[in-house]
Amino acid sequence: MATHRFDPHFTDNVIHAMGPKTSPRLRQLMTGLIRHVHDFARENELTVDEWMEGVKMLNWAGQMSDAKRNEGQLVCDVIGLESLVDEITFTLAEEAQDAPTATAILGPFFRADTPYRANGADIVVTKPADGEMAFMHGRVMDVQTRAPLVDATVEVWQASTNGLYEQQDEQQVEFNLRGKFRTDAEGRYYFYCLRPTPYPVPDDGPAGKMLELMDRHPFRPAHIHIIEGYRPLTTQIFDRKDKYLTNDSVFAVKDSLVVDFVPRKDDPQAGLELEYDVKLVPSA
Amino acid sequence: MATHRFDPHFTDNVIHAMGPKTSPRLRQLMTGLIRHVHDFARENELTVDEWMEGVKMLNWAGQMSDAKRNEGQLVCDVIGLESLVDEITFTLAEEAQDAPTATAILGPFFRADTPYRANGADIVVTKPADGEMAFMHGRVMDVQTRAPLVDATVEVWQASTNGLYEQQDEQQVEFNLRGKFRTDAEGRYYFYCLRPTPYPVPDDGPAGKMLELMDRHPFRPAHIHIIEGYRPLTTQIFDRKDKYLTNDSVFAVKDSLVVDFVPRKDDPQAGLELEYDVKLVPSA
Repeated sequence: MATHRFDPHFTDNVIHAMGPKTSPRLRQLMTGLIRHVHDFARENELTVDEWMEGVKMLNWAGQMSDAKRNEGQLVCDVIGLESLVDEITFTLAEEAQDAPTATAILGPFFRADTPYRANGADIVVTKPADGEMAFMHGRVMDVQTRAPLVDATVEVWQASTNGLYEQQDEQQVEFNLRGKFRTDAEGRYYFYCLRPTPYPVPDDGPAGKMLELMDRHPFRPAHIHIIEGYRPLTTQIFDRKDKYLTNDSVFAVKDSLVVDFVPRKDDPQAGLELEYDVKLVPSA
Repeated sequence: MATHRFDPHFTDNVIHAMGPKTSPRLRQLMTGLIRHVHDFARENELTVDEWMEGVKMLNWAGQMSDAKRNEGQLVCDVIGLESLVDEITFTLAEEAQDAPTATAILGPFFRADTPYRANGADIVVTKPADGEMAFMHGRVMDVQTRAPLVDATVEVWQASTNGLYEQQDEQQVEFNLRGKFRTDAEGRYYFYCLRPTPYPVPDDGPAGKMLELMDRHPFRPAHIHIIEGYRPLTTQIFDRKDKYLTNDSVFAVKDSLVVDFVPRKDDPQAGLELEYDVKLVPSA
C-alpha cells in the first residue's frame, strides 16, 4: 500500500488508537483527517521548523479571536474551505430537490441579534459621504409552486464604504447597514441600502499573513449578505460591475449570485434599484 | 481528473490564486495543504456545522496557549503529527549517513534556560515520597568513529511522580528534574534522577476533548527527555516496564529508545541504574 519510504504502519497505528466508543461519524472524519494530514507531511517531507510555524499560526488565530472576530474561520476562508463546505451542502441539497437560490458563506460578521425593520425602511442609518443609495426589493417564493411565501424573514447586512461592518467601526451606530424584514401578503420585501463596495478582509492576523505569503490581495468583491428564514438559506449577492468578482479572497462568488444595479427614477431616497427574487424550499 | 460530483475547478482556482511572488517552498506546501484539506472535505461531505466545530477547536487551542503551554502543538501531537515529522526528519538524516541515535519529539515542556549541573549531581531537588531514585550514565560518541565526544552537552528533563513538570507544579522548585551536563574527557555523563512514571497529557483543552471523542486515554509512557548538543539531537528514552509503551497518546515510542533500569547495589543515593550511550553525527 505505502508508496513512500517512511514507516508504513505509522498512520494506521494512529487511526487504530481510536477506541470502540468513538461515534461512527467522528471515526470517519478523524480517519480521513489523520490520513490527509500525514500524507501531506510525508509527500512534502515537512520539516520540524515548518510544522512549528504552522502551529504558531494556528495558536495566533485563536489568540486573535473573540466575540467580535473569528480568525480561525477567516484562515479557513482564505484557503477556500468555507466556500467549499458551502458548495458541498448546496450540491447535496440540489440533488435532493429542485434548485433553490444558491447559497454562500455566512462569513464572520453576522449578528444574531439584528432587529426587525418595517418594509421600506432605510438601513443606512450612518450615511457615508461617498455612498450610493439603492432600493432593493423582491419576492420570496416556494421553489416548487412559485407561490409567494408570506411572513418569511429576509435578513441583510453589508459593510459601509470604508470597508467596515458596524461592529468593526466606532463611527457607525449599532445595527447600521443591517436589518430583518418580513415579507408581506404577496411575499414582497423592500428597503433602502447602499450599493455595496469591495473591502479587504482583516489582514493583521494569520489569515493576512497567509495571503501575503501567497502573494494574494485581501479584497472581497462588493456584496450584500442575505439570510432567508423560511427554511433558512444564507447567501450573498454580488455587484456585476465589481473588479474583484472573479478574484474573491474567500472564493464565495457563484454566477447565479451576481446581480445588476439599475438606475432608479423619481425617488429622492435612491438613485439605484436592485430587484432580487428568492426561491426557497418549503420547510419540512 | 475529478472523481467527485462537486465543482471540478474549485481547488485549482484556489491554488492558482497564489501570485508570482510566492516562494517556491511555500507554494509547494500551500498547494499540498489546500488539495488535502479540500479532498478531506469532499470525500467526507463535511457539513457546515462539523467544519464550524473544527474552527472552534482551533480557536480554543490558541486561546489556551501561552508562554508555558502550547495547546496547538498538543493537538498535533495527539493525531501523531509531531512524531511523524520527527520520523521524516530522522529517516532523511539516516539516508544521508550512518544511523545516529533515534530521535523523538521535543514536546511542550522543554525550557531553553535550564542551568548546567556538575556530573554526579542529583536533579531530584524536590523529592516525591513515592519516587524511585536512579543513577543514569553513559557515553556520547561519534556515530562513525566511535570516538568519545568531549564537552558535548546532554540536557535532560522529566516529570515528577504526580505527572507534572516543574513549570506546571507550584510544589516543585524551579528547574527541578532538569539539568544540562557536559561530557568529560572520556565522553561520559552521569547524574541521579527519578525512574520515570507515566503521566497524562493536559486534557482540559481541545486536545483532551479530541482524545475523549476518539475514546482514547491521555497517558504517555514513562520517559526521560534528552537533547544531545553536539550537532543537537532531541530524543526520549522509555522504560521497558511501562504499560503504555505500545499505546503512547502522542505516538513517540521507537524500539531503539526503550531502555532497562537495573538494580544498583551499594549506592545510598539510588536503587536503580540506567546506562545509556548516545551516538551523534559530528557537526559539519
